[in-house]
Amino acid sequence: MTAAELNHEIRRKGSYLCVGLDSDPGKIPVHLNREAHPVFAFNRAIIDATHDLAVAYKPNLAFYEAMGTEGMEQLEMTVDHIRSVDPNLFIIADAKRGDIGNTADQYARAFFIRYDFDAITLSPYMGRDSIEPFLQFTGKWAILLALTSNPGANDFQMQRFSDGEPLYEKVLRESATWGTHDNMMFVVGATRPEYLRRIRKIVPEHFLLVPGVGAQGGSLEMVLENGKSTHGGLLINNSRGIIFAGSGSDFAEKARGAAERMTKGM
Amino acid sequence: MTAAELNHEIRRKGSYLCVGLDSDPGKIPVHLNREAHPVFAFNRAIIDATHDLAVAYKPNLAFYEAMGTEGMEQLEMTVDHIRSVDPNLFIIADAKRGDIGNTADQYARAFFIRYDFDAITLSPYMGRDSIEPFLQFTGKWAILLALTSNPGANDFQMQRFSDGEPLYEKVLRESATWGTHDNMMFVVGATRPEYLRRIRKIVPEHFLLVPGVGAQGGSLEMVLENGKSTHGGLLINNSRGIIFAGSGSDFAEKARGAAERMTKGM
Repeated sequence: MTAAELNHEIRRKGSYLCVGLDSDPGKIPVHLNREAHPVFAFNRAIIDATHDLAVAYKPNLAFYEAMGTEGMEQLEMTVDHIRSVDPNLFIIADAKRGDIGNTADQYARAFFIRYDFDAITLSPYMGRDSIEPFLQFTGKWAILLALTSNPGANDFQMQRFSDGEPLYEKVLRESATWGTHDNMMFVVGATRPEYLRRIRKIVPEHFLLVPGVGAQGGSLEMVLENGKSTHGGLLINNSRGIIFAGSGSDFAEKARGAAERMTKGM
Repeated sequence: MTAAELNHEIRRKGSYLCVGLDSDPGKIPVHLNREAHPVFAFNRAIIDATHDLAVAYKPNLAFYEAMGTEGMEQLEMTVDHIRSVDPNLFIIADAKRGDIGNTADQYARAFFIRYDFDAITLSPYMGRDSIEPFLQFTGKWAILLALTSNPGANDFQMQRFSDGEPLYEKVLRESATWGTHDNMMFVVGATRPEYLRRIRKIVPEHFLLVPGVGAQGGSLEMVLENGKSTHGGLLINNSRGIIFAGSGSDFAEKARGAAERMTKGM
């Protein structure tokens, strides 16, 4: 998928919404445990109830890997279901990987080919040769952590180098030269909207994936005001605020309600 | 496993060797493809041939994940086999994860409990709250990337902050305060032995996991000279140089030969 195609979907649906499928098996409605594949049954219901409101889904790999082979099978079923519902939905593997050539190439093949994800989140710590293997696949995307929404972002990301530039800005400036705005995005937490304006100056056209609206307390209005590019260029993620909006048999309707409230503001 | 127990094994075996199980299914001897579980059959033969020479094994998760559920099953079988051969072998999940509390906790449970690994490699980019969940499991370890062996280490890790300290040193200094030398190690590439002496001043007692000897060109002698702590404190990894030393029916003997040559220098 190209940036233009993704921006087209955003305009068509009037939505920047990315639904985070952090589908913790311990938190899904208990009645689903009668199903052969409870997590997939949960995801399917959420997807069926929200796909006209969302432009992207982001399974958080940790929750699937924690279930072992069973979990990975349900991840595969989830990606297939999203594809069958609407082939224009953008699917992100929230994996936060980062390793060198040989290994990076294995991960790229795993996520882009075996599982047919559109994008994968990556840590920039190991530098250019840990990212480039992900940029070799036409229509696929590397999403680099830049400024994250957690308190630990202060430990290293916000620290300034001798030229006055904080680490996260150097990551943006350097890594933007490795790819294009058609194969690279950046993660910028919604809990730091005051930085979004600065970030937009460094990467005016790149897509930003913005987590932290909702459960983590980020403001949607501030994100839109400071984070939009000329053509759109935002994916705003909400995970628990949508998928766990309800916990009874009406969980999917509740999720739709939460997604509607969020996209109304877009 | 405690640091004292691991150092005891190192002295007992006269070896710092960690064998990296980067068991690419495209590179294992072709005759193994007749087996029901080719990658596991490969790993089992390597483990059986080297376990008296090695103190640790390090499956590289990318290669198993790239095979989907089949791969994860063979990973589980591999960990079980190592445990059954010698319960004192140290098993590292080379996963290079790094995510916040909620997700980090899922990964910790996946690798420490479901798969029974002793340790997991982590990226420090997201800071303290992305590491701490891994420090809550008695006898288990977080292994943080500090200075890696690839060219991309120059992009960010080697860059100096305004106080003159490069990022990798800040990572060592800061994160060493989050845990103890009984639950935290650091990755330092063998391709940069001149830095090992400096690193030993910052973390005199912590274990260092040193990749890059062999295929990547690092010198074993330099690593030993500059990297040892008072009690040992080193795990020196070799992956392809050992597991792919041969490619015929004698691949396991060849692997043993390569491991013997390497441990002789220890």
